[in-house]
Amino acid sequence: MALKFKNAKRIEGLDSNVWIEFTKLAADPSVVNLGQGLPDISPPTYVKEELSKIALIDGLNQYTRGFGHPSLVKALSCLYEKCYQNQINPDKEILVTVGAYGSLFNAIQGLVEEGDEVIIMVPFYDCYEPMVRMAGATPVFIPLRSKPIDGEKWSSSDWTLDPQELESKFNSKTKAIILNTPHNPIGKVYTKEELQVIADLCIKYDTLCISDEVYEWLVYTGNKHLKIATFPGMWERTITIGSAGKTFSVTGWKLGWSIGPNHLIKHLQTVQQNTIYTCATPLQEALAQAFWIDIKRMDDPECYFNSLPRELEVKRDRMVHLLESVGLKPIVPDGGYFIIADVSSLDADLSDMKNNEPYDYKFVKWMTKNKKLSAIPVSAFCNSETKSQFEKFVRFCFIKKDSTLDAAEEIIKAWSRQKS
Amino acid sequence: MALKFKNAKRIEGLDSNVWIEFTKLAADPSVVNLGQGLPDISPPTYVKEELSKIALIDGLNQYTRGFGHPSLVKALSCLYEKCYQNQINPDKEILVTVGAYGSLFNAIQGLVEEGDEVIIMVPFYDCYEPMVRMAGATPVFIPLRSKPIDGEKWSSSDWTLDPQELESKFNSKTKAIILNTPHNPIGKVYTKEELQVIADLCIKYDTLCISDEVYEWLVYTGNKHLKIATFPGMWERTITIGSAGKTFSVTGWKLGWSIGPNHLIKHLQTVQQNTIYTCATPLQEALAQAFWIDIKRMDDPECYFNSLPRELEVKRDRMVHLLESVGLKPIVPDGGYFIIADVSSLDADLSDMKNNEPYDYKFVKWMTKNKKLSAIPVSAFCNSETKSQFEKFVRFCFIKKDSTLDAAEEIIKAWSRQKS
Ligand SMILES: Cc1ncc(COP(=O)(O)O)c(C=O)c1O
Ligand SMILES: Cc1ncc(COP(=O)(O)O)c(C=O)c1O
Repeated sequence: MALKFKNAKRIEGLDSNVWIEFTKLAADPSVVNLGQGLPDISPPTYVKEELSKIALIDGLNQYTRGFGHPSLVKALSCLYEKCYQNQINPDKEILVTVGAYGSLFNAIQGLVEEGDEVIIMVPFYDCYEPMVRMAGATPVFIPLRSKPIDGEKWSSSDWTLDPQELESKFNSKTKAIILNTPHNPIGKVYTKEELQVIADLCIKYDTLCISDEVYEWLVYTGNKHLKIATFPGMWERTITIGSAGKTFSVTGWKLGWSIGPNHLIKHLQTVQQNTIYTCATPLQEALAQAFWIDIKRMDDPECYFNSLPRELEVKRDRMVHLLESVGLKPIVPDGGYFIIADVSSLDADLSDMKNNEPYDYKFVKWMTKNKKLSAIPVSAFCNSETKSQFEKFVRFCFIKKDSTLDAAEEIIKAWSRQKS
Repeated sequence: MALKFKNAKRIEGLDSNVWIEFTKLAADPSVVNLGQGLPDISPPTYVKEELSKIALIDGLNQYTRGFGHPSLVKALSCLYEKCYQNQINPDKEILVTVGAYGSLFNAIQGLVEEGDEVIIMVPFYDCYEPMVRMAGATPVFIPLRSKPIDGEKWSSSDWTLDPQELESKFNSKTKAIILNTPHNPIGKVYTKEELQVIADLCIKYDTLCISDEVYEWLVYTGNKHLKIATFPGMWERTITIGSAGKTFSVTGWKLGWSIGPNHLIKHLQTVQQNTIYTCATPLQEALAQAFWIDIKRMDDPECYFNSLPRELEVKRDRMVHLLESVGLKPIVPDGGYFIIADVSSLDADLSDMKNNEPYDYKFVKWMTKNKKLSAIPVSAFCNSETKSQFEKFVRFCFIKKDSTLDAAEEIIKAWSRQKS
């Protein structure tokens, strides 16, 4: 029996997952959790209140349209028409999914064939690699590399792709490239010139672009989020992915969306109807209502799309100072809500840790246990060949209340005093 | 370009879907909708109120454990320990999914290999076939057949599998059989003897059983729902699937669960972490709270697991009388909330309808348009070879308010008067 009931080959070796492992570790309530991208600030009151009201309406607790609740796809089309400066058909060019995660899965399963190649930039949001493998395709990796830094600050914009090296990854088997801007974990916001290089290659090699833009609103002073789908020749080959969890600080809602031309979206819809059929109605209706509130005040500083990045920029700066104050050189993010730093100068006795793991895995486990502070090892965002390049880095999440950041500060400062 | 951006082969031909087509038709508010399995009765007040309260709690709007929110898997293990009379490990033997639909997908993707065969009983909940095909496996169909009926009533229990015919479908390639009890659309509740035949074959041919029991609480007087996982030798080879939508009349919540031994569940968990990662937190917490309320009063007639089938039995009887009163011979269901009947004696002018569709598709479209009453064609629950056996049947859903059933009654009676 045992043999016949093995897993299907498509999931062979895809069973480890950094979130499952490190979320369990951080579950201890005495741990200050800067690990998973999980806001502990309050989501906007109107977002919670919409769900609270809608929960009491009978009809909104029943099945809705499979490809997206009508009022939600309407709100999304209205919002993104403003961003794209172009009409978007709510029924044919939008698909609502179980988080951005579900959009990534639907896109890859619907469009990527066994034997295809998919280009992934390292480091990368960790699910890209197993999702590509589950589709029977081969991930092809290209690392972001840092310029030598002379100045005081190390910025996420110092990390770039080498255009020649990028082109060398494209060939006739390349089905897609996965782009992530603003970038998790580095915080890089791709510039117009950088996106143009990628767009040119996509067109030259007739390649799809899966653009993960879940942190689209979270860009800091001096930066601007650009959508590669708006570059000439790109709409027809791009799936752009967003997330309610990241947009409204409600990661527990697990709603996301894919936007693109119908000739692509229709295949993602086919995957949806054979995997989950439809997403939760009350959450979709509440999300639609929340969007309407902010769509109507997009030029207002109170609009959440504007106020959240302002609030986070202060927290980012605080984290930079904190890490610098203990002698680290963090990579200052231009977007997103993570900051990474080389932590190898921090004192940690890893001699008791399992030896078959990268440095950062051991470090974070040790830190969580001994310092009651958790983070995420950056090598979790790397393929096996590039892990060693990033294993001295650890990612801290800063979408946290001041009291949480205070507690983290206390831990880190005490730790550094202990050393000296 | 067009060619390179075709769908992946795994979803080839899997793009049509009865719900999407017929839900759109029934969306006209003047239509009385007995189509999709969508309650228009109120869900229990405490279920809605739990969600309404939980929506306001910050932490319950953020990510939770990927394989199931801790309080929900605990409630599920407590509930099902009572049913199985055996301990169930909440972390290792339960997986919370996006509806029962998501559980079916995870089970099939996680365990069924390209080239495998999967036995499906006809008629079947329509997603079984494309899900098996998407895994690259071959569905093998066996029809439920009706005994000749001499009595007044035609019952769902008159529909049975022929044990020899069933055995002829098993061979060394058979990876799994999908069972559905209580059955959609026939309403059959499999008996102990019938389940024993299936269990014996699963053991003899070393086959998995995927048991879809979403209507487990909805059985009518004289019938008892039995879990095949409790039969000797079956726990280790069975995934049992349930649904919050069907259990608490909140189909829009899209939460379901799989229960089984860890050596099977762990593969479904791997699929989950590479497809959606986690389900919505506020819904999971609200569902857990709802379960605790009813777990504590399971012997009480007010417990929803007891009160809902009582309420529905009255509606079933009403539908039987109504259909009989216009000369039809419905198949009286022993469970679930659907009733099917041969409608070919009802007067319908289908001459204007597209000719390449089964009779029941044309009939339902005609009825929706001309009589403002919707239903679901039963041939949608058949593979192409067996469609003709069931194309005179139409499925009506009766988990509806009295006023909805009144409106349906008026339509059907007027229609029949018109004829005579
Ligand atoms: C880059 C990126 N993509 C996708 C996701 C998943 O988003 P969701 O929770 O909406 O599935 C995350 C979550 O952290 C992310 O950082
Ligand atoms: C037999 C059967 N299985 C599964 C499902 C899907 O359930 P859920 O809405 O929980 O995904 C249904 C819904 O109608 C069903 O009838």
